[in-house]
Amino acid sequence: MKHIRIAATLVALSLAVSASAQQALSFKAPVKSPEVNPDNSVTFRYRNAKALTVQLQGDFLPTNAPVDMVEGEDGVWSYTTQPLEGELYLYNFVVNGERRNDPSNMHMNRDIATWTNFFTMSTKQGDKGWYYEVHETPHGTLARRWYNSPTLGADRRISIYTPAGYETSKAKYPVLYLLHGSGGDEDAWVDLGRTIQILDNLIAEGKAKPMIVVMPNGVYYNNAAPGYAVNMFQPTMLNSRSDSTKEIEDSFQDVISFVESNYRVAKGMYNRAVAGLSMGSRQSCAISRSHPGMFGYVGMFSGAVLADTPEAEAALAKQMDPKWAPKLYWIGVGSADGVKRNAVKLRDYCESKGYPVEYYESDGGHVWRNWRVYLTIFAQKIFK
Amino acid sequence: MKHIRIAATLVALSLAVSASAQQALSFKAPVKSPEVNPDNSVTFRYRNAKALTVQLQGDFLPTNAPVDMVEGEDGVWSYTTQPLEGELYLYNFVVNGERRNDPSNMHMNRDIATWTNFFTMSTKQGDKGWYYEVHETPHGTLARRWYNSPTLGADRRISIYTPAGYETSKAKYPVLYLLHGSGGDEDAWVDLGRTIQILDNLIAEGKAKPMIVVMPNGVYYNNAAPGYAVNMFQPTMLNSRSDSTKEIEDSFQDVISFVESNYRVAKGMYNRAVAGLSMGSRQSCAISRSHPGMFGYVGMFSGAVLADTPEAEAALAKQMDPKWAPKLYWIGVGSADGVKRNAVKLRDYCESKGYPVEYYESDGGHVWRNWRVYLTIFAQKIFK
Repeated sequence: MKHIRIAATLVALSLAVSASAQQALSFKAPVKSPEVNPDNSVTFRYRNAKALTVQLQGDFLPTNAPVDMVEGEDGVWSYTTQPLEGELYLYNFVVNGERRNDPSNMHMNRDIATWTNFFTMSTKQGDKGWYYEVHETPHGTLARRWYNSPTLGADRRISIYTPAGYETSKAKYPVLYLLHGSGGDEDAWVDLGRTIQILDNLIAEGKAKPMIVVMPNGVYYNNAAPGYAVNMFQPTMLNSRSDSTKEIEDSFQDVISFVESNYRVAKGMYNRAVAGLSMGSRQSCAISRSHPGMFGYVGMFSGAVLADTPEAEAALAKQMDPKWAPKLYWIGVGSADGVKRNAVKLRDYCESKGYPVEYYESDGGHVWRNWRVYLTIFAQKIFK
Repeated sequence: MKHIRIAATLVALSLAVSASAQQALSFKAPVKSPEVNPDNSVTFRYRNAKALTVQLQGDFLPTNAPVDMVEGEDGVWSYTTQPLEGELYLYNFVVNGERRNDPSNMHMNRDIATWTNFFTMSTKQGDKGWYYEVHETPHGTLARRWYNSPTLGADRRISIYTPAGYETSKAKYPVLYLLHGSGGDEDAWVDLGRTIQILDNLIAEGKAKPMIVVMPNGVYYNNAAPGYAVNMFQPTMLNSRSDSTKEIEDSFQDVISFVESNYRVAKGMYNRAVAGLSMGSRQSCAISRSHPGMFGYVGMFSGAVLADTPEAEAALAKQMDPKWAPKLYWIGVGSADGVKRNAVKLRDYCESKGYPVEYYESDGGHVWRNWRVYLTIFAQKIFK
């Protein structure tokens, strides 16, 4: 890659002022935040001479409680962490008791309706953070488009990753259908899940097969993410309902038909996988059951599969015909996740029936930090 | 479209709490902000019982100065505007003198390194805001991918819009190459420019020809937008240099070759247009000159074309061979834009040489609000 040259001239200053007419410009030296130090500790900085208290909240801290930042010269508050492992970390400041983002770090992710700063760091090739970063590997393409669902009578939005070389190859590719959770949309796995980076890196390393990854919008109450939906739609996680799996389940054949008629797709159940997180894992399980013989691999990340009543277990038994058992049921869940009980029940059920099941338990709860790990693991296990 | 049903149940609450472990959750009723009222005035709300002052800054206000919001019951500050016209508007709050975003509105755009809230509104079909919104029309596809530039010895990032029907058609399409400004990247025209919505809407109305729109990363010092670049790259507008047009100009044949070998493209200069804003307009002018006979339409939005020295004008004259004059030089600039003088000079130069030139002067300055309008106009004038 071209060496990055930074010529800090003032050539464009007059343009900058007019272009930023809406913005309060500060001519004080900007602070660098976050800054990864040589020992892999990270320093956060925030300039606000008038603030009474400034705190830092982040998923790299021992607890969820905010820690105090210390005011230094010139009104710059700072905090330095212990050395950290490679990861994608989330954080925000708390200023005078109010949550706010770090104005020095433009890296932000939207989770449902909330924007949060993030940063990635890696300490060596192959650590978690390394898979979430962009490296000088061949890069796949992300298509953000719409498909028509005759079942729903609507166009719906979908994100589709094709691996590096897809456009110039004549090969047919296996497909992973990857479903988001409640309140999410077709951007969730892309932005929060770092799916593009994980797949680019795993494929470049030869650890995952080149595959297409299909990320449809799976929320029943809207057809697209904010900015791509009609009106100023604002999603909320509480827009759920007990039968929220129904529509995506009923209409999933429309997704498959669209993909298989628009992409060079290898056929057969061993070239199809379906996986999802939380609500999406419930959908993955349901879709694999309602399309027997369609999917060779099913991934349930923090699975909220409800097999904890006799009725639910009977329904599960009825639909999980051993004849069509996938090559792999992969179940991942965090030890502190509220749905762990369900995941364990499903594992036990699969084992009692002799289904091929793998169970992976990580630390932590119902969070994207786990789902990125589960995708990284699952993607290496499929289509092989 | 499916009717939007909102079932405000608490089914997912336990998940919400664990999923949002990094976030300070408030169980007070959320405030709605912004809210477009029946008379097209807009109300902004912000809850902060501890704030001493809360102000609103927005490009719909008479001046750039913040206006005071008024504290009401329960610590909710509010402000209601005059009735507004259809538009995409930008705003932020100023709390205790410090700029911050509206936590109730997840619609945000990044301009270089700054995130700002936005909202769209339209009062009738065909007003400015209407073109920036998503309607129930056929939708094109946005591919976010990389191309190889042999000239630069690097992979570089590029966003490519293909119109609705491209994938299922066998037709060949004309191509608009659309270039961003200093500090921008391959996301700028997509997110700030609302290019996808403008083109979808114009094409659906029959006002623009179905076309491919190619938006390469045109910044010399990095090859991709933040999040898609190696490392935690943070762009800044001041990373400019006097010869910043050089590399994109030198390597532009690589962009054209990539597009023409990867897409079904109609050939010939009357099927190619190049346009850009600010730095991108300088590049558009330079590229059209260095590729004589390649482009039938050249758009210069807030053009910083430097023809104000005898040397620059001589260079312009040498490269603007009337034999290869495009069908249209389209120049758009704001009456308050600092580069207006250059735009007028270029217009006069083109007219003195008998080149086909159109000049459009809008209100306002060097801002995206103008560039969206210029794209809307220019897209209707090309390939016809």
